[in-house]
Amino acid sequence: MILRDPVHGLISFESEAFRIVPALLETPEVQRLRRIRQLGLTSFAYPGADHTRFSHAIGAAHVMCSFIARLQQIHEGLPYWQRLTTDRARDAVAAALLHDLGHGPFSHLFEEALPRGPRHETWTKRVLLDPGSGVHRVLAEADPAMPGRVAELVAGKHPLTYLARTVSGTFDVDRCDYLLRDALFTGVNYGKFDLDWLLRSLRIGESDASGEAPPLAVDGAKGIPAIETFVLARLFMFQQVYLHKASRSSEWLLGRILQRAAQRIEDGTRLPNMPPALHALAVHGDVSLGDYLDLDDNVLWEAIRAWRSCKDEVLADLCQRLYHRQLFKTLELFGEESNEDEYQALHDVACDLLTRRGLDPEIYGGIDRASVTAFDDGQGPLWVLFPDGSKKPLGEVSFVLGRLEGQPLQKVRLLFPGEIRDELLDALRSRRRP
Amino acid sequence: MILRDPVHGLISFESEAFRIVPALLETPEVQRLRRIRQLGLTSFAYPGADHTRFSHAIGAAHVMCSFIARLQQIHEGLPYWQRLTTDRARDAVAAALLHDLGHGPFSHLFEEALPRGPRHETWTKRVLLDPGSGVHRVLAEADPAMPGRVAELVAGKHPLTYLARTVSGTFDVDRCDYLLRDALFTGVNYGKFDLDWLLRSLRIGESDASGEAPPLAVDGAKGIPAIETFVLARLFMFQQVYLHKASRSSEWLLGRILQRAAQRIEDGTRLPNMPPALHALAVHGDVSLGDYLDLDDNVLWEAIRAWRSCKDEVLADLCQRLYHRQLFKTLELFGEESNEDEYQALHDVACDLLTRRGLDPEIYGGIDRASVTAFDDGQGPLWVLFPDGSKKPLGEVSFVLGRLEGQPLQKVRLLFPGEIRDELLDALRSRRRP
Amino acid sequence: MILRDPVHGLISFESEAFRIVPALLETPEVQRLRRIRQLGLTSFAYPGADHTRFSHAIGAAHVMCSFIARLQQIHEGLPYWQRLTTDRARDAVAAALLHDLGHGPFSHLFEEALPRGPRHETWTKRVLLDPGSGVHRVLAEADPAMPGRVAELVAGKHPLTYLARTVSGTFDVDRCDYLLRDALFTGVNYGKFDLDWLLRSLRIGESDASGEAPPLAVDGAKGIPAIETFVLARLFMFQQVYLHKASRSSEWLLGRILQRAAQRIEDGTRLPNMPPALHALAVHGDVSLGDYLDLDDNVLWEAIRAWRSCKDEVLADLCQRLYHRQLFKTLELFGEESNEDEYQALHDVACDLLTRRGLDPEIYGGIDRASVTAFDDGQGPLWVLFPDGSKKPLGEVSFVLGRLEGQPLQKVRLLFPGEIRDELLDALRSRRRP
Amino acid sequence: MILRDPVHGLISFESEAFRIVPALLETPEVQRLRRIRQLGLTSFAYPGADHTRFSHAIGAAHVMCSFIARLQQIHEGLPYWQRLTTDRARDAVAAALLHDLGHGPFSHLFEEALPRGPRHETWTKRVLLDPGSGVHRVLAEADPAMPGRVAELVAGKHPLTYLARTVSGTFDVDRCDYLLRDALFTGVNYGKFDLDWLLRSLRIGESDASGEAPPLAVDGAKGIPAIETFVLARLFMFQQVYLHKASRSSEWLLGRILQRAAQRIEDGTRLPNMPPALHALAVHGDVSLGDYLDLDDNVLWEAIRAWRSCKDEVLADLCQRLYHRQLFKTLELFGEESNEDEYQALHDVACDLLTRRGLDPEIYGGIDRASVTAFDDGQGPLWVLFPDGSKKPLGEVSFVLGRLEGQPLQKVRLLFPGEIRDELLDALRSRRRP
Repeated sequence: MILRDPVHGLISFESEAFRIVPALLETPEVQRLRRIRQLGLTSFAYPGADHTRFSHAIGAAHVMCSFIARLQQIHEGLPYWQRLTTDRARDAVAAALLHDLGHGPFSHLFEEALPRGPRHETWTKRVLLDPGSGVHRVLAEADPAMPGRVAELVAGKHPLTYLARTVSGTFDVDRCDYLLRDALFTGVNYGKFDLDWLLRSLRIGESDASGEAPPLAVDGAKGIPAIETFVLARLFMFQQVYLHKASRSSEWLLGRILQRAAQRIEDGTRLPNMPPALHALAVHGDVSLGDYLDLDDNVLWEAIRAWRSCKDEVLADLCQRLYHRQLFKTLELFGEESNEDEYQALHDVACDLLTRRGLDPEIYGGIDRASVTAFDDGQGPLWVLFPDGSKKPLGEVSFVLGRLEGQPLQKVRLLFPGEIRDELLDALRSRRRP
Repeated sequence: MILRDPVHGLISFESEAFRIVPALLETPEVQRLRRIRQLGLTSFAYPGADHTRFSHAIGAAHVMCSFIARLQQIHEGLPYWQRLTTDRARDAVAAALLHDLGHGPFSHLFEEALPRGPRHETWTKRVLLDPGSGVHRVLAEADPAMPGRVAELVAGKHPLTYLARTVSGTFDVDRCDYLLRDALFTGVNYGKFDLDWLLRSLRIGESDASGEAPPLAVDGAKGIPAIETFVLARLFMFQQVYLHKASRSSEWLLGRILQRAAQRIEDGTRLPNMPPALHALAVHGDVSLGDYLDLDDNVLWEAIRAWRSCKDEVLADLCQRLYHRQLFKTLELFGEESNEDEYQALHDVACDLLTRRGLDPEIYGGIDRASVTAFDDGQGPLWVLFPDGSKKPLGEVSFVLGRLEGQPLQKVRLLFPGEIRDELLDALRSRRRP
Repeated sequence: MILRDPVHGLISFESEAFRIVPALLETPEVQRLRRIRQLGLTSFAYPGADHTRFSHAIGAAHVMCSFIARLQQIHEGLPYWQRLTTDRARDAVAAALLHDLGHGPFSHLFEEALPRGPRHETWTKRVLLDPGSGVHRVLAEADPAMPGRVAELVAGKHPLTYLARTVSGTFDVDRCDYLLRDALFTGVNYGKFDLDWLLRSLRIGESDASGEAPPLAVDGAKGIPAIETFVLARLFMFQQVYLHKASRSSEWLLGRILQRAAQRIEDGTRLPNMPPALHALAVHGDVSLGDYLDLDDNVLWEAIRAWRSCKDEVLADLCQRLYHRQLFKTLELFGEESNEDEYQALHDVACDLLTRRGLDPEIYGGIDRASVTAFDDGQGPLWVLFPDGSKKPLGEVSFVLGRLEGQPLQKVRLLFPGEIRDELLDALRSRRRP
Repeated sequence: MILRDPVHGLISFESEAFRIVPALLETPEVQRLRRIRQLGLTSFAYPGADHTRFSHAIGAAHVMCSFIARLQQIHEGLPYWQRLTTDRARDAVAAALLHDLGHGPFSHLFEEALPRGPRHETWTKRVLLDPGSGVHRVLAEADPAMPGRVAELVAGKHPLTYLARTVSGTFDVDRCDYLLRDALFTGVNYGKFDLDWLLRSLRIGESDASGEAPPLAVDGAKGIPAIETFVLARLFMFQQVYLHKASRSSEWLLGRILQRAAQRIEDGTRLPNMPPALHALAVHGDVSLGDYLDLDDNVLWEAIRAWRSCKDEVLADLCQRLYHRQLFKTLELFGEESNEDEYQALHDVACDLLTRRGLDPEIYGGIDRASVTAFDDGQGPLWVLFPDGSKKPLGEVSFVLGRLEGQPLQKVRLLFPGEIRDELLDALRSRRRP
C-alpha cells in the first residue's frame, strides 16, 4: 500500500510488520475518523485546518514505521529479549494507527461537555476489545492476543519501556505527526521541526539494575537542537493555534451548546435531530459502542443546524451563532492589568451589560482560562546520552529548555457577545483613566 | 484582515479596494462553503484532500489581489478609461471570492445527477442578485449596481477584456488557486508552478482597431517557461488527481446513489432524512434559493447514512458501500488492448457475472470515460508579447505546448464491484491467450 | 558519517557497503572538487549558483544509496548471480561519488578550448587507475580489483545492465542530483521532480533470452507522471539555465580567452601566472596527472586576473571583461525572422561595426548555436512494465513524452560587445522596415 | 532588473527608489564580493555552504525593499519630515546592498589575524567615500551627498531612528538575509523564520518628547511569535553553524597560518604568491584601497597552495593541512567536567604530547572559547506596541525571550592535531577513573 500525504510525502506500508495497516484502514471504525476533524473548530480561525483524524492516524502510523526502522538499527546492543521483533513492530504500528479511535466529535470538547460519560481513552479500549468491531477482528486474526496488547500499548504500557514511550511520551509519534500536520494545514510555520534528524538522533538508553528494558534517549552530541526545536514547536503551536482566541471562543460556544442540550434532555424537552448517543450519555452517563461510533462531526453539525429553530430560544440562538461563525469576542489584558482582580471587575461589568440586554450572564459571558507547561520533563525524562557514556535529563543539558522547564504559559480572556463590545471597552477605558 | 493559508502563506485584505472581503466572508452564503469540500470525494483517494471551497474562495480572492497589483503596475500604457480603477478592482476581488457560491454538495456530481435542475453558475447568479441574500446586501451597500456587475464578471463578461480573462480564461485566478491548493492537499507535487514569476510575466496586450480593451498577455522574453509549467501542472493534476481511478469510482457510485434516490422520489417512495431541496429538484426541476443553500456535504452524508437502512435494498447497498469506502474496482486496458471493442467485450462478461449474482448490471457495472484536452488555446488565445513589439498565440511559440495543443488525454475504465474481480480477471486472461 | 545537504536534507553513509565513502571523501582528489563549481560561470546569470562538484558528488552518492535500497527491495525475482550484493553496492556508490573526478576548471569549457587534450572521462579513469592517487589507494585497500571495476562502471559498463544504467542512463543518479541541485541553487523551480516517488516506481525489467541481467524499468501503473516530470525538468533546466543567454555568453568569452592564451603559449609569449598544466596541454596535448589535478577554478581565475595586465592587449581586454562581468550582449530572433540567413546578415553587419572600431570580428563577434534533444529514449530505452506483465518503451506510453521524443530544442544567438549594441539594433530595425 | 534567488525567489529592483541597484551591481567593488564566501571556511563543515557575499548583498537589498514597502504603508501617522521619502528609500537600499563591501577574504578571520590593520567597517567607509571607486561614482551621480549619507547609514546612524535600525539593530535586513541564507545553504533548518509575517507585524514606535524620529517596533497582538522565532533562529544558527566544531577548528587553523605568515613577513622571509596587501598590512598596518580590494578568497587560497612548499616547515605543514581539510580535532567537555581547571589540565597533557612529537605546542594546540548572548535587547530595545497604545520592551513581553535575555551561550573546546588524539583520550579516561 502506497499513499501520498501532504505532510510526509510518500507513505507506504509494505514490509511484513506493516502489512496489517491496509486491512485496519478498511474497517468502519477507522473510516469513521474521516468524519472527525483533527482540530475541532479551529478552521474557524485557520481556514485551511480541515484535516481529519483519519489522515493523522495514517501519519502517526507512518512516523511509527520510521521510529521502528531507526530502533531496529540500534537495538543490537540489547539482550535479544529486549529487541524490537517483527511482532512487536506490528503491535506498535497498530497502536499508532488506532490510538485515537475513541474520539468523539470535535475531540476533547465533547467529553468535557458530558463529564459523566466515558473518556475517549475508554472508548478506544472498548473498540479494540469488542469482538464485534472490525478493528478487533483484523487484529485477532493476526494473533488472538493482539487486541489486548495493542490496548495496553495505546495506554502507554509495554515491557519495552522505549517502545511504550514512542506511543506516549515527551517525544511520541502522536505529537510528531500532529505538530507537523497542524502546522501545515493551519499555515503556521512555527510548528515545524526536523523529524529526520530527530529520528537519526534517537538512541536507546541504558538499562538500570532492575533488568527492565531501557528508555528512549537522544544523542547528546548530535540531537540537542533537534529535540529543542521539537519542544519549542509544541510551545509555539499552543501559543498560535491551540490557544488561539477564535479557537477558544468557538470551543467555548460549542461547550455551552452541548451543556444546554444536555439540560434539555434531562428535563425531557424534545430536540430535533438529537443523536441517540448524546441522549443516552446525558441520561445514563453511558451508551452502547455502536451508538457512540455513530457520533461524528457531521451528525453533530446536523443537530446544531436543526436546533437553530428549536423551542429553547437560548439554545437556538447559540446554535445560530456557531453555525454562521458569529463567535463571542475576546478581551485579553496585558502587563500589569493582567491580573485576576481586573478580569473579575470587567466580568462584573459584562454581566451587568448582559443582564440589561436580557441575556443570561451565566451563558453569554465568562472568563476563559487556558494553561500549558512550556516543557515538562519531570516524570519519565527524555535522557540525553553523551559520547563518553554518561547520561543526563534533557532539562539539565539544554540551554533553552532548562530555562523553560516547568514554566506555565497562561492565557486568560474575557468572553462576551459582540453586542456589548463597545460598552465594555468604554468601561475598560474609564477604569484606566479614573 | 490578515489570515494564514497553507498555500499562499500570509493573506491580507486591507487596501481600500479589498476591504469588502471581510464583510463578504461573514455572510451565510460564503460561510456555507465551509461545508462543501473542494474535491468532492477525492479524499477517498488522497487522505489529505479535505479542503473546502471556503479556503479556495479566499485563495482565489488573494490571487486576484496579486493580479490586480501587477495589472496596476502595467496599465499605464492604456487610455485612462481602460485602466484598472479601485472600483473595478473591488468588483474583481468580489467576483474571485464569490465565483463558486452556487456549488452544490460534492460539486459537479450533484448537478450531473439531477440534470433537470439549474447548474451551479445559475445558482451563483441567483445568490448574487437575490436582494435577500447576505452577499447581495454587502455588495449593494457598497454600490447598488455592484451585484449585477459582479454577476457579469463571474460569467466572464466585462468591458475590460484583460480583467474578464482573470476571472475566466486560460490563466485565471480560479485555476491558479485550485491547482496549487489541490496539489498541496493531495500531496501530488506535479500541480505546482511558479505563480510569482507568472504574475511578473503578465502583460496587457495591444488593443486592436475596434477600440476594445486589450486582452491579457505574457512576456515572451521571460514568461514562457512559467506559463508552460502552469499548463503542464493542470495536465498532471488531471492525470493524477481529477481522473484518478478511486476519485472516478467514488464519484460514479455517488452518481448512482443520487439517480436512484431521484427515481424513488419520483415514484413516491419515502426515504429518511431526505433533504427538501433534493426532493424539489427531483420533482419540479427547481427549488427555492433558501432550500438550495441548505444543501451541503454534511446534509448529503447524513442522508446517505440514513438511506443505508432504507427499504430500497439496492439504494441501501450502494449507500453502505460509499459510506464505508467499499468502492467499485476499476480495470484499465493499455496498448493495443485499449480499444472500444475490448472494453465492450469485457463489459458484456461483467454484465453476465453480475446477473448471475443477482446484481442489476445497469447499476453495478459500467464503462467510465473521461477526457480532457491537454492544452487548448483556441478561443481567446493567451498572447505572447515579444520585446520587438510583435505578438503570437502561446501555442505557436511554446516548444512543449505547441506539441500538446488540442490533444485529448483520455481515460477509459471498466467499473464493477469487488465481488466479481477474480472471475473478470480470469475472463480477461483467457481472452488474451485464446 | 552524517551530513546536512540543502538538497537532500540528512545524508548518511553508514551501512557496510557505504562505509568506504568517508575515506574517499578525505582524499585530495575528491577534496579538489571543492574548488570546481558545478555550473562553471552560471553564477553570472544566477547569483546563488556557487555550488561545487564536491557537493554534487556527495549528492550523487546519496542518491545511489537510495537507488540501491530500492533495487535490493525488488531484486529477489532475479537469479542470485544477478542480485545487487554488498560488494556491487559498494562499487556503485564509489562510482557515483567519483564519476566527476576528472573535470577541469569550469567543466566542459576547459576541454572544448583545448581539444587536443584528453577529455574529462579519460582523466577520471587515470585518477582511478593511478596507484599514486589517494582515491586509488582507498579503493585498492578494500579490494585490489575495485579501482578497475569502478572505472568500468563510471564508463557505464557493468554485467548488471540495470546497475550500469543507474550510473549512466536516461534516469541516472548524476542527473537526479544535478537537476535538483542546480534547480535549488539557481532558484529555478522548474528543475524539481518527485525523486521519492520515482525511486518507489523503479522496477527491474525482464531478462531476455540472452541470459544477460535485465535493464532498469519503471512501473507503468504508478510511475509514468514521475518519470515524465523528471524528463520535463531536464528540458526546462536547459531552457532556463544551461542555455541561458548570460551563461552562454560568459562561457563563450571564457572559451575565447583560453584559445587566445593557448595561441600565445604556442607562439612562445610568456604570460604571468600561467598554470603549468595549461602550458603543457597547449604545447604537448597532454600533461602529467599531478599537474592536471593542480588545475581548478581558483588557479584559472588567478591566471585571468593576472592576464588583465599582460602584453597581449586583446587577451588583457577579454580577461578584464570576464573578471568584472562585462559580458557580450546577445540577440535572439523569434518567429519568421529566426532563420540562418537573417543571423548571417546581422553577423555581417556586426563584423563591419567591429572592424570600424578596430575590434577583431573573429574574436569580438559570433553566432552561438546550442541544441538539446527534448527527450531521447532511442538507444537503451527506459522500459515501462505494466501490471499484466507487458512492457513498452517510455516514449510509446507517455502522452507528453511521446510528443517530444527526438525533437530538438535549439537556441541561436548573435554575440557582440555592448559597444555596438545601439548601432546593431538600428541596423536590425532598418532591415525590418525596408 | 529581475533575478532569481534560492532564498527569496523572485527579486526585482524596478521602482524609482531601487533603480540604482543594477548600476551598483556592475561596479568592480560589488562584483568582487562574488569572490568572498559568506561563511568563510564553513563549507568544510556543511558542503553546501559555498554562497558568497555577493548573493547576500542582493538578498539584504531585497529585504530592505520589503521593509521599505511596509514602512511606507505605516508611516502616515508621522509628521511629514519623518516619513520615508523616495530619496531616503534609495539611501536605505544602497546601504543594505553595500554594507559588507569592506570585508576581506574569509571575513572576520582576516582582520583578527592582522589586528593592526583597519577593520572591515573602515574599509567599507573608504570604498564609499573614495572618489575613484565605482561605487562612489554611481552614488555621487545620483546625488553628490549620497556617498556620505550611505556611509553614515551603514554605520547605523540616521536621523530616522527607525530607518537606522533596519540597517543595524536587533532585527535588521542583514540578519534577516543571512539567517535565511545560511540556513538554506547549510541545510540547517533551524535558521528559518517567518519573514513575511514579521514584516507585516512591523510598526513604527511612538516618538518621545525629544522630537526625534521614533524607533522600530513590533505589533504586540500579532507579532510576538514571529519575532521570537527570529531570535531563536539566530541562537540555533550559532549553536549549529557559526560555532560548529569544524567551522571553529578550520578558522583557528587559518588564523594560525595568517599569524605565521605575518611573522615571516616581519622577519623578512620571502614567501611565494604573497598578496601585496597582506605584505603591506603586516609591515605597515595599512595598505592602499586598490591593493586591499585585490584581496579575496581566491588570492588567499592560491597563497596557501603555494606556501605548502615554502621553506618555513611549520607554515608549510599548516597550509597542507588546511588545503586538504585535515583539520585539528576538538574535544568538548560536558556537565561537571566542563570547567576551566579541567580544560587547562587537558591542555597541559596535550602540550606534553605535542612537545614529545616535536610539534610546537604554541601552534599545534589551544583552547578555543566562543560565546554569544542568546538574546540581548538591552541598548535600543525592540519595542512591542499593544492595541491599547501601551508599549513594552520585547524582553518583558515574550514568554521565551524573557527567560533567555542576557544569557551567554558558551562553547569551549580543546584543539589538537589528530596525531595525538588516542593518547589524549587515554589521558582523559585515566583522569576520570583515578
